[in-house]
Amino acid sequence: MDAVQLEGLAFDERGLIAAIVQDAEKGDVLMMAWMNAESVALTVAERRTVFWSRSRQELWRKGETSGHVQHVEEIRVDCDADVLLIRVHQEGAACHTGERSCFFRGLDA
Amino acid sequence: MDAVQLEGLAFDERGLIAAIVQDAEKGDVLMMAWMNAESVALTVAERRTVFWSRSRQELWRKGETSGHVQHVEEIRVDCDADVLLIRVHQEGAACHTGERSCFFRGLDA
Repeated sequence: MDAVQLEGLAFDERGLIAAIVQDAEKGDVLMMAWMNAESVALTVAERRTVFWSRSRQELWRKGETSGHVQHVEEIRVDCDADVLLIRVHQEGAACHTGERSCFFRGLDA
Repeated sequence: MDAVQLEGLAFDERGLIAAIVQDAEKGDVLMMAWMNAESVALTVAERRTVFWSRSRQELWRKGETSGHVQHVEEIRVDCDADVLLIRVHQEGAACHTGERSCFFRGLDA
């Protein structure tokens, strides 16, 4: 598989990149959050997801208070290098509501 | 499953919402793109994905030129109502490079 370097990622005008988190075993999509360059580097170094909170403007180590850590198995990069797909082993629930995935509702249309 | 109305979606300051596209059969994540309110409504009405191109500033019917249409099986909404997860039956390749998924590269870190 081809590889992209950290320096090759296309952060947006806010310095952020979208990170989709997928369960490595079951394949379901758990959540999407944002990372800046520092949180990508920390996610790589610590092998657990670290995001950037846009509302709090600070790093956010997933599971730091809840214990619901996401252990990183693999990080993939999309064709434009502006989205990450992070495959994880999830401890507990991914969603702050207690649901396993943040996508627990349907669109009623 | 609880449901969110179209009017309940949380579009960002640009009027956009992120849409993750997942293969309904194989479960792999194919791509992420953006939708505005009109493209969400069209996706629902036509049962195929219609995105908003940020670079071209126009609606973009996936597969219109390539034939690689994404037939919508289900649309889910995340806990903050600011990300969609669209499960599809993909015709051909999802990626414009010809790869099945846009996430065909790893992060080398």
